[in-house]
This record gives sequence, C-alpha cells and structure tokens, in this order.
Amino acid sequence: MSQVAVAYPADRVSLREVGLRDGLQLVKNWPSTDEKREWLAREHAAGVRHFEVGSFLPASRMPQFADVRELVDAVSRLEGARSAALALNERGVADAFETEVDEIVCVISATEEHSQANMRRSRAEAIDLVRMAARMRDERGHKAIVNAGIAMAFGCSIAGEVDQAEVLRLAGACIEAGADIVGIADTVGFAGPRQVAELSAAMARLSGGAFIVHLHDTRGMGIANASAALDAGCRVLDGSLGGLGGCPFAPGATGNVVFEDLVFLCETKGFATGIDLDALAAARSVPKHAMPEEKFYGAIARAGLPRALDWRA
Amino acid sequence: MSQVAVAYPADRVSLREVGLRDGLQLVKNWPSTDEKREWLAREHAAGVRHFEVGSFLPASRMPQFADVRELVDAVSRLEGARSAALALNERGVADAFETEVDEIVCVISATEEHSQANMRRSRAEAIDLVRMAARMRDERGHKAIVNAGIAMAFGCSIAGEVDQAEVLRLAGACIEAGADIVGIADTVGFAGPRQVAELSAAMARLSGGAFIVHLHDTRGMGIANASAALDAGCRVLDGSLGGLGGCPFAPGATGNVVFEDLVFLCETKGFATGIDLDALAAARSVPKHAMPEEKFYGAIARAGLPRALDWRA
Repeated sequence: MSQVAVAYPADRVSLREVGLRDGLQLVKNWPSTDEKREWLAREHAAGVRHFEVGSFLPASRMPQFADVRELVDAVSRLEGARSAALALNERGVADAFETEVDEIVCVISATEEHSQANMRRSRAEAIDLVRMAARMRDERGHKAIVNAGIAMAFGCSIAGEVDQAEVLRLAGACIEAGADIVGIADTVGFAGPRQVAELSAAMARLSGGAFIVHLHDTRGMGIANASAALDAGCRVLDGSLGGLGGCPFAPGATGNVVFEDLVFLCETKGFATGIDLDALAAARSVPKHAMPEEKFYGAIARAGLPRALDWRA
Repeated sequence: MSQVAVAYPADRVSLREVGLRDGLQLVKNWPSTDEKREWLAREHAAGVRHFEVGSFLPASRMPQFADVRELVDAVSRLEGARSAALALNERGVADAFETEVDEIVCVISATEEHSQANMRRSRAEAIDLVRMAARMRDERGHKAIVNAGIAMAFGCSIAGEVDQAEVLRLAGACIEAGADIVGIADTVGFAGPRQVAELSAAMARLSGGAFIVHLHDTRGMGIANASAALDAGCRVLDGSLGGLGGCPFAPGATGNVVFEDLVFLCETKGFATGIDLDALAAARSVPKHAMPEEKFYGAIARAGLPRALDWRA
C-alpha cells in the first residue's frame, strides 16, 4: 500500500488540524512550544491524528514557526499521529528531510500573479520545488509524503477568476513532478458549494484516490463547501480549532473552517471521525489561554451538542 | 395559477425574511413600529420580497408583536412584497383574516411532547386549526395562503429523534386539511445536510411543488443545510438578517440562518435572488441600532463580498 493510502485511507474521512500552522500565520503572539505541545496532546487525546505544525522557514522570517522541529518530534510521540509542515523553498525542503516529519507541504499558486506576489517565484518554479522534494524523498528513502497544495484554487484575490481546467493542469503537473497528494485551497474564501463540488469531482477523477480540500470560512460557506466536497468524493479535509487563522485579504474575517463544526458535519453525514467532540471543544482552552487576544469561532463550542438524541448518522 | 405558485414561483428561489417574527421571539427589547417599517423598507429596497412580520397574539402575551396589523399594512405598500404572520389559535386565525395579510402561518409540532409543551394542544388539534384556516380562506375568498409549518421536524429537544415518516404523515395531513404550503423547521438546529437532503427530497415528492425549509444555525450547519435543501429541490428558504433569533433550548446559540449569507449561497449556486447584497448588509444598521444589546452574525457582513471576481454562478 502506498504511503498516502496509509496516511489517508480511502474508506474513511481524515481531518487535518492546520491551526498550529495556518492558524498562527497572522497572529501577533503565539503559544510557547510547551503550550503548542499541550495543544497537540489535547487534540490527540480527543482523537485528532493529522497535525500541520509549522513551516520550515528561517526563524527571523516567521518566528512563530521557529519550533517546527520540536513539534514534529512532539507529534511523533503521539500514538498514531502524523505531522505535516510547509517547505516553501529549497532550503526548507532540505531542512524538512533532516527531520522525521511525515508530510512535506509545498505550495503552488493557481495564478501566476499570486505566485509572484506571494512567493516571488513562478508557478513552474514552485512545481520544480515539488519535483526536488519528490526526488529527495526517493533518493533518501524518507518516509515523508509530498503534498502539493494549490492556493487560490477557487478564485484569486489578485487575478480574479481561476479556470478549473488550469487548476487541474497544475494538479496534474504536481503529480507528474512526484507529489504523493494534491490539495486544493480556497485561500480567500471565494468558493461556494457548487464550485467546490465541481472541482472536487474533477480532482477525484484526476487523482484516482486521496486529495485534500482546504477551506476558509471567510464568507460563511466553509461547512457547506466541506459538505459539497464530501459529497463529491473528497475524504481529506483541513480545519482549525476554533476557526483560528484570519485572512490577510479580508481584515476581520474568520479563518479556516472550524474543526469542531467540521467533525459534527462529518458525523451527521455518516462519516465516523473517531473524534470526541466534547473533548475537542474543551481543547480550545489551550490556544485561547495562550492567545487571549484572538477570536475563536464555532457553533458547537457555543451551543453544545444535541443532547436529546444521537446526532451521529 | 394557484396562489402558492404566484407567491413562490417554481423556477426561482424565494427567500423569506423571518427576522421580524422569529428574530424578535426572544428579545427583551424590540424596534418601534417605525423602526420595523424602516427595517422592512430597507430590505425591500435591497430586493427582499417575503416578510414574516409577527404573530396574531394578544399583545399582553407577546408585546413585540402588538403592531402586527400595522406591519401587514406596511408590507402591502411595498411593491411586490408579501406579508406572512403566525396564527397559533382560533382567535389568531380569525384576527388574521380581518387583515390583508398574504400568508397565515400555523405551526404543528413534529412530536406530541413538544406540541403539548409548546402550544398546550395536541398535534391533531393543531391540524384542526389548519383546517379552520383553510375553511375560512375558502368561505371568505380571502387571498391569504395557508402555511403549515412543522416545528422540530429534524429532531426534538424534548422527545429526541423524529422519524421522517412521521413528519411526512403530518405534512400530508396538513395538505389534506387544506394547507396551501407546508414548511419543515429545524427549530433547535439538530439537523445535518444529509438529513435535510433526505427530508427535502421526500417533501418535494409529497408536495409536488413548493415547500419551505426553515433552518437555525445553532450548530453551524445552517448554510450547509440550506445548500442541501436547494440540491434536493427546495426553492423556498427562511432566514433572518444578521441571523437574529436565538434558541430557547441552547442559550447563547445563534439564531436563524443568516439571510445575507443565504443570499450569497444561492447566488454562488446559480439561483438569482434579485437581492443587492451590499444593500442588504447595510440594512443591518436598522435593527442593530434599535437593539444594540443583540448579537448580529454573518460572514458576508464581516468580510464583504469578493471584489476580485464575479461570485455569481
């Protein structure tokens, strides 16, 4: 069985907690390494198994991710848990392979304009980085899977509309370059469920297996989009505890789709997550205590679970 | 063409603003009649056409609805707008027919337990009230359509699980009793999109035409459930500006599905609403100013519309 099929079995839903990476991308203060370990441990105890924990970048550029190696280690000590981390340049990829990280995430922009503005490199160069990561994986026999995430896949805050055919072309190029799995990201929360369903169905055909849908709740469509992705065959979804992680292009907007609400959605749709929702909601106290100035979202945490009936499908 | 087909054409989505009724059900303070008129006028100017404006009840019991007649009149002066109001007992129905209201809403609980607790009458008696309203409509040749709304249709905070067959039986009994249209309400926000899709599809078959889905966003599933209802053939959905309208069974929980976000959802799915979303979001200022202590929700109002592209499908 391929590493991807082990990490993301086809017969169940896998939910990736990206709060420790995407959720900390824009914050002014962040939890200490110990607090992050506690955060991971609490979510792991609730049943979460996939954690994106940071980015391999110089600490001078993104000090909130300076402890990425310690967190990769922390995840490796949690039974059945898998770590993922971003690597946005050659140095980051090389650094990542020096660790026991389970998944290395490279990012490709759907549009040339965003690629240049965000990463100061072309999309072709971004795909070259995927190729380099895949080659390093193969040469070293490293266990890490290479994840190529396509940002702005549903519309770009700079270039505007994004043709789905172009996203699929890029996804194909990433697979061709050796990516084990491809993700599509609604980076700025432009998508509606119809668009998500269409692109997800096409990604299911293209990948022939697992692919990731990464959604932001900027315009309130997060859970509806996740539902559409599940209906279209997606089995790997990202979220963040309390919806942590704002949007640089929409000040004051909510962040990633709320992990707790995403779990509730999956369970009502008949996808067992293995996650204890009460314990998950209680885990919010760790990042909330560490970042009292941040806003945490989520309806389950606010209203509680239905108690009068079994809400699991 | 039937009155229902005129009110709710089959070839488009109709969105019912229930904020002036459901949204004011639990508030301690409410807008003055003039402020409510301004609220209606602003939403009408934005393109909203369906307004539930109160309940025909003694002012001593629900003082926030004491001006229901004035609001029915106010709506009748807004071009193309239609008013609806609740009538929960014989007196209310009789009073309603003394006005020019366009739609009289009777409520039936999906469970006997909730029916007794909420209305101190049995479900059979609630259906008798529908029958009385339908008879009065026919005898007087009154233009009003009779709407039978089934509360707790997706689960009951008292009785727990609700069998879909039972909801369909009640819906059929309401139609048999003369209801022009039936609604299904997720009164306490228990539903997920799968359940909404299933019951909506069954309601589409049963009604052979229009039916209403009334959702609360208590557990964050509101927009996802609306999307599922649309996919299953529902073309009439309720919402409230800013998601006004809490839940008596989940303190602190959000209320109805947010009208603005519902409009965005519909448009991204290719259902033209005729509603100007910027103007709609701006109309929030009226109830917000009148009820500064109430919390208003909604992602579109917070993040704004996507500006880089045309988000309408």
